[in-house]
Amino acid sequence: MAEVGATPGGGNNRPALSDLDAQGRELLISWARQAGCTPRVDAIGNLFLRRPGTADRSPILIGSHLDTQPTGGRFDGVYGVLGGLEILTTFAEGRIEHERPIDLAVWTNEEGARFERSMMGSAVWSTALDLDAARALVDQDGTSVGEELDRLGWSSGPMDTERPAAAFELHIEQGPILERQGQDIGVVTGVLGIRQLAVQLTGEAAHAGPTPMVGRRDPVRGLVQIAAAIFETCEQMGEHARATLTSLSSSPLSRNTVQETSGFVADIRHEDPLRLDDFEGLVRRAIDRASAELRLDSAITVVNESRAVTFDERLVSIVREAAECLGLRHQDMVSGAGHDSCYVSRVTPTAMIFVPCAGGISHNEAESMSEEAARNGADVLLQAALQAATS
Amino acid sequence: MAEVGATPGGGNNRPALSDLDAQGRELLISWARQAGCTPRVDAIGNLFLRRPGTADRSPILIGSHLDTQPTGGRFDGVYGVLGGLEILTTFAEGRIEHERPIDLAVWTNEEGARFERSMMGSAVWSTALDLDAARALVDQDGTSVGEELDRLGWSSGPMDTERPAAAFELHIEQGPILERQGQDIGVVTGVLGIRQLAVQLTGEAAHAGPTPMVGRRDPVRGLVQIAAAIFETCEQMGEHARATLTSLSSSPLSRNTVQETSGFVADIRHEDPLRLDDFEGLVRRAIDRASAELRLDSAITVVNESRAVTFDERLVSIVREAAECLGLRHQDMVSGAGHDSCYVSRVTPTAMIFVPCAGGISHNEAESMSEEAARNGADVLLQAALQAATS
Repeated sequence: MAEVGATPGGGNNRPALSDLDAQGRELLISWARQAGCTPRVDAIGNLFLRRPGTADRSPILIGSHLDTQPTGGRFDGVYGVLGGLEILTTFAEGRIEHERPIDLAVWTNEEGARFERSMMGSAVWSTALDLDAARALVDQDGTSVGEELDRLGWSSGPMDTERPAAAFELHIEQGPILERQGQDIGVVTGVLGIRQLAVQLTGEAAHAGPTPMVGRRDPVRGLVQIAAAIFETCEQMGEHARATLTSLSSSPLSRNTVQETSGFVADIRHEDPLRLDDFEGLVRRAIDRASAELRLDSAITVVNESRAVTFDERLVSIVREAAECLGLRHQDMVSGAGHDSCYVSRVTPTAMIFVPCAGGISHNEAESMSEEAARNGADVLLQAALQAATS
Repeated sequence: MAEVGATPGGGNNRPALSDLDAQGRELLISWARQAGCTPRVDAIGNLFLRRPGTADRSPILIGSHLDTQPTGGRFDGVYGVLGGLEILTTFAEGRIEHERPIDLAVWTNEEGARFERSMMGSAVWSTALDLDAARALVDQDGTSVGEELDRLGWSSGPMDTERPAAAFELHIEQGPILERQGQDIGVVTGVLGIRQLAVQLTGEAAHAGPTPMVGRRDPVRGLVQIAAAIFETCEQMGEHARATLTSLSSSPLSRNTVQETSGFVADIRHEDPLRLDDFEGLVRRAIDRASAELRLDSAITVVNESRAVTFDERLVSIVREAAECLGLRHQDMVSGAGHDSCYVSRVTPTAMIFVPCAGGISHNEAESMSEEAARNGADVLLQAALQAATS
């Protein structure tokens, strides 16, 4: 799979709804057919590869995503999909039967990189996002999700109404905690809430030389004050708080001009929904304070948010017991990243399994994991899925 | 002139070496011909409109530039050129004779906006910048100065070797000082030194959620620390220090990723060359400190520098006396902006005349000045030029 959209730096660039995304899926479908699976696609392009069960019962869902960041790695999402494929292949080769059907899911546009709405496919599937709203999203070139879905022939199927009995997502941790603690498996009990605020500041363009420092309406200075306040606030919000600033910009494009506008996106996260609200409030206060002091206009748009999630207690226990039975070192943990499971968990009992990745590095071409970690995670997924598919 | 490259916001966008730049010059040439002037162009496209003198002596140079910032105003540079034209027209209409010829100069690419080298034409004219180096500069589309000069037919003339006896530049202040002090004329004694440092920081891309704050190599955090230190240092460097940050950027384009790179350009200015060196040293130390703390790689390029300038004492006195004779309120001042006169002064005795502009606003479509201010400045220029042209 890593050969599809391979980057010079050893990573992957497989943008959602691109030809490369389609190529990756074709490859997966060919492998899954050998494991006796049948593909189907819903209206937002989510791909499901079903291995039938022996009883007429609601299915078990396993899976993740195949799209990547622009300079992404080879494992984020992909490991969960191929881990699921490995299990279905194992079942096929070992003629292992299960009562419930098992659906291997590939969610559309999890990354939100090309089309800036992460977890898009699972959001539509869970009815958290309107299908038409998702189709209307455009990339930097003005191409819409709807146009790409139609072009690829991925928009013809109906949306699922039957909900799975259980859902599991296997994923690399994308952080350094398991590696630092010497653990094999992270039993994920929930996910940090996320809020992304796009901030645009407007001041007054002026000549960089003759304009005294006092009295400038400099939106870059505003950005610097606000950013410093956000990082400081994050520190005060405890170990599970995160603050990441991206998409820095300023205009006009002139090195002799006090800028007229500046912009950035602040991604803030916290495990506690109330504390996340507090955090956002403090960010907004910092923006107001700098705007008042420097006489700037500010516009704040919430471009993405994802509630803090607590996973299903029974399924979390199944994961924990599977790791325990296999003799693997495990610990409970909260995921810092959003995952399709956040949306899936709104309509279906859900749990996640983490395995360590090298140095905790992710969203990076250098993303890597050991074969042992890959095996451990797939073993736990197999045990957990089988347990759920027969109960 | 303001109709050529007029912007919706009431300003001007007449990029250097564009068709609009050529259109503006054609207009100027047609007016200057009516005042008995003959045009010539040197090898870097500097335009000189000569009104002959009665004696065979070296000329007096007056002038400025016609190119603008992308969202520039109608007066920056243009006022100095049209003020010079007004004087030549007055001489023609009043049949006022002068011993020395008078050259009205239009320097090529003063703004450094399209081609990022400000005061380019005067720099080449004064031999501070190599002609071939200037021709090799490219804009954002990869078009070179040389290509544009050849296309417009502005590269055929020889470079001047005869140096004028005196040079005057009339300009709007581009700052709020004269207006705040209720002055009519700024007698410019010198120009702040300028240094522009392009700074690129490289850290390590990582997932915004699962990566704990401690241990991140976040180049945006580095940018914020460095920027805050620059603004703070500027405050400590006194009233004549300036710090302006432009061209903010970060990558990759993903809202879920701790950025791998960030960049900005710092424009720092000071009237005292030694203090400017100190200032740059403190900026570099702040970059080193943040880079060490956050384990970032940093690259610093000096993209532009302009020495602090002290203008010719005799010509400054001529300007001061002209203002005095005309009964205008005047004060000595230092220019915060670089001007073509900075380079001209390297090879020719030079002085500048400032007049107030509304609110001190410049490099902005809202740039404006009163008719009275425009008249005052031209009156002083006329007196000063006449004085120099007959001595």
